[in-house]
Amino acid sequence: MKNTQSTVPAEEPDDLSAFKHAFRRHAAGVVAITAMTREGKPVGFTATSLASLAAVPPLATFNMARVSSAWPAIESTDYVAIQTLGARNRDLAEKLSGDRELRFVGDHWMVGPHGLPLLKGVTAWMIGRIIERHPVANNAVIVVRIEEGGVGEPDEALLYHERTYRRPGDPV
Amino acid sequence: MKNTQSTVPAEEPDDLSAFKHAFRRHAAGVVAITAMTREGKPVGFTATSLASLAAVPPLATFNMARVSSAWPAIESTDYVAIQTLGARNRDLAEKLSGDRELRFVGDHWMVGPHGLPLLKGVTAWMIGRIIERHPVANNAVIVVRIEEGGVGEPDEALLYHERTYRRPGDPV
Repeated sequence: MKNTQSTVPAEEPDDLSAFKHAFRRHAAGVVAITAMTREGKPVGFTATSLASLAAVPPLATFNMARVSSAWPAIESTDYVAIQTLGARNRDLAEKLSGDRELRFVGDHWMVGPHGLPLLKGVTAWMIGRIIERHPVANNAVIVVRIEEGGVGEPDEALLYHERTYRRPGDPV
Repeated sequence: MKNTQSTVPAEEPDDLSAFKHAFRRHAAGVVAITAMTREGKPVGFTATSLASLAAVPPLATFNMARVSSAWPAIESTDYVAIQTLGARNRDLAEKLSGDRELRFVGDHWMVGPHGLPLLKGVTAWMIGRIIERHPVANNAVIVVRIEEGGVGEPDEALLYHERTYRRPGDPV
């Protein structure tokens, strides 16, 4: 097998450019994470960081910035809703990553378990009880215990890759 | 927008089945994570849990089972190599997720920075200094500070979705 590491550019990337170059080559599935503030205001955002941690018990993680608009809610609530998005949810993904004041303007959501905002039309949803919050620099790793959930109509998964929303392609 | 949550099966899934159903609808990029044991033996595995945590400083996370064959190395080493895989690396992904005794039999790797095993032919690689290990049940969340890295020849990202390796498809 050819050693393609030899193609590293002459201007050796520093730590940040190494990070950026590698993540540009990486693809990720898109979820929407929603919560309710203590004042009863829905908050939410899209994330490409959802990862399985364990199946028994069912645990998952996601990462977020502690300067994000949703952090005060995530910091103080016990539960979040995690919604997997399909290709049909592209507009929903744009809404949940757009102007934060407009993210819940409309009838694209309803109130679900624990008073959580649940997005309609998603491919699946899970209710996660936050069991750990690990602050790291200005960010946090959130660990959730999945307690319940359900599925919507099937669809291809929504991917984010090279700054573009995509659907999965052919098997390799 | 239609409320497809109403299609949740009559037999309401319990926590585990909710988790499984949702992650089946999720797609993820594939990386290979490698390390060296104290005895100088290379270990590695494929992961779909790599997630960006911050860009400044460049931080990332991945999750693993503490019963995995690579855990003793990850538990005691300071550095790991994280390699993003492309569609051309499908065989490499199978090798790194197959028989653990055969994962480093061959000339598909070399010794890189900090004595780490670096896989050849990958789309990008990063050296991560382990700054935190958070045990959660029988698993762990690993936080790494990316210190250096480089890129290989371009390729489509390797995805894992519905138990199949895939390439990214069309924009949606």
